[in-house]
Amino acid sequence: MIKTLPVGATIGILGGGQLGRMLAVAASRLGLRVHIFEPGANPPAGDVSHRVTTASYDDHAALTAFGRSVDVITYEFENIPTSALDLLETLAPIHPGRQALATSQDRLTEKTFLQGLGLQTAPFADVPDAIALGAAMDSIGAPAILKTRRMGYDGKGQARIMVAADATAAFADMQGAPAILEGFVNFSHEISIIGARGQDGSVACYDPGENVHQSGILRTTKVPANLTASQRTDAVLIAARVLNALDYVGVMGVELFVTSTGLIVNEFAPRVHNSGHWTQNGCHICQFEQHIRAIAGWPLGDGSRHADVTMENLIGDDMNKLVEYAKTDAAIHLYGKSDIKPGRKMGHVNRIVRT
Amino acid sequence: MIKTLPVGATIGILGGGQLGRMLAVAASRLGLRVHIFEPGANPPAGDVSHRVTTASYDDHAALTAFGRSVDVITYEFENIPTSALDLLETLAPIHPGRQALATSQDRLTEKTFLQGLGLQTAPFADVPDAIALGAAMDSIGAPAILKTRRMGYDGKGQARIMVAADATAAFADMQGAPAILEGFVNFSHEISIIGARGQDGSVACYDPGENVHQSGILRTTKVPANLTASQRTDAVLIAARVLNALDYVGVMGVELFVTSTGLIVNEFAPRVHNSGHWTQNGCHICQFEQHIRAIAGWPLGDGSRHADVTMENLIGDDMNKLVEYAKTDAAIHLYGKSDIKPGRKMGHVNRIVRT
Repeated sequence: MIKTLPVGATIGILGGGQLGRMLAVAASRLGLRVHIFEPGANPPAGDVSHRVTTASYDDHAALTAFGRSVDVITYEFENIPTSALDLLETLAPIHPGRQALATSQDRLTEKTFLQGLGLQTAPFADVPDAIALGAAMDSIGAPAILKTRRMGYDGKGQARIMVAADATAAFADMQGAPAILEGFVNFSHEISIIGARGQDGSVACYDPGENVHQSGILRTTKVPANLTASQRTDAVLIAARVLNALDYVGVMGVELFVTSTGLIVNEFAPRVHNSGHWTQNGCHICQFEQHIRAIAGWPLGDGSRHADVTMENLIGDDMNKLVEYAKTDAAIHLYGKSDIKPGRKMGHVNRIVRT
Repeated sequence: MIKTLPVGATIGILGGGQLGRMLAVAASRLGLRVHIFEPGANPPAGDVSHRVTTASYDDHAALTAFGRSVDVITYEFENIPTSALDLLETLAPIHPGRQALATSQDRLTEKTFLQGLGLQTAPFADVPDAIALGAAMDSIGAPAILKTRRMGYDGKGQARIMVAADATAAFADMQGAPAILEGFVNFSHEISIIGARGQDGSVACYDPGENVHQSGILRTTKVPANLTASQRTDAVLIAARVLNALDYVGVMGVELFVTSTGLIVNEFAPRVHNSGHWTQNGCHICQFEQHIRAIAGWPLGDGSRHADVTMENLIGDDMNKLVEYAKTDAAIHLYGKSDIKPGRKMGHVNRIVRT
């Protein structure tokens, strides 16, 4: 039976960054309160949440108090320690579920899972240790990318192998962590699709966006993406297959490479996604509210697109351009971070093209 | 010189109801924090604010601490005691300013001010006491409405006088409060215009909305309103005249009656307004963000309308209809109030018609 959270119920969010902040705002629209659990001080999400617990993920007393104070638990990043989840799942439902988290936390598990669904991925090989590296290089060839299986984000924990001789140095960069070797994919551009699945099993996807990265960090997403009608359909079918296979509840971001032989899945993130921020100004129900609706047992909302949008991240001293953006018709979304640091995501801007 | 509030600065809001709640959400988009001052416990705005002070308006120690903790002060309702404002204005700028507040707090001052600007109002007469009532009735005639000069909202503090013989009973209803007698206006419908003025003196208005009231409480607002092009222009000119005359900073709602002899000003509210809630889904910058932009010294945002919208208030047990709304493409905005009471504004719904 689906339990719809009533007005005044509390959503627990693991992580207090900008995704948690925008989830909290969306929760408020549905009359729900938010309790943030975050190890770092002054989390961006704390400004708009009913309650914040500042504690580490191995503080079991704090986790227990947090779990008891909330009606459902979600998260804004995927690298949550298993021990914390083991404890929390005894206290409140966790959405998206453990399987989605376990699968996406490990690149090897993720790619194996995706291939098992009949989806295309980059060629890959397991590199548990230095001995396996040679066989992996023989199988995949150069150029390739060596990545740690776990804890990678924004281009960290990765090393490119342009020629076979680079392999040993690349493996040393992994500092002994189990790794995966991925072959290069010859793609024309990257897109992502933001999909949602409700507790009733219904699936709704947003129009795919086209992403441009710089130094491993998302720079812009634009909708509509440059895609044929059948590629657009394929993207939706891929997202739906992943969502259904995981019996998923919530919003997921799936990154796809567009190639001459079809769409290749890069990875998925079991959470709201930077490449879905455009939905805040291009749709009547944004990805953040869609996620809250799903985990709170509401019907999924109408995510149809009413405008063309370009989302641009404000990274580091992009913040100096803010005054210029403020004079245009761009919609500005800041994260409340006072300290500007290189590579730090400070906010984003949605520029709307009326259609 | 215009001081633009930097990321991490704090806006103080007097009042913690739904307007404060939605202002707090808008402030977060601009990287600003909110501190709510509210006498009542568990205010709706508290769920999405960095800080809440629960204290009465005559608690000068609490007011002082509040005023010192914020960079600018605004309010979500107009009946703030003068003594509180006297204290607060020594600690931080208050926007909109004292003149706007003093004018709108008193129906007699407000109507006198509006007529002084050359704007049409209902005929009115001052009724300071029982003796003045007779002369006022002679001047205005029946039917008429007797209203307290101060502290009226949602139809409270008002009595209709259908025939002259009702006048004495109506005056008794005022319980000795100074009153104003207003003549009936023969209008076809009521509209309101939400205008904003920035610290640089720039003015921006939203498209006027058409309002329907029930039992003195706003029921629905729809845009576009039923107006001729010249009536639409008149509405903007009226709002601009009021904003400029008060050297206003922030968002204002102006209620207008549409009559065969032009637009008649009913009243203005020096704050974001229930009849402007449609802007959350019909515009890229809503009235709440527009208000925050103005008081924070930002340029005013683009308030152009991209859709036709009908806003419907969820009042009392309208909340029972929520599950039906959730299944449609309506955008839902709840205020986090758990207790359903007759006449209580629990939330609103914006239904979008794509244009």
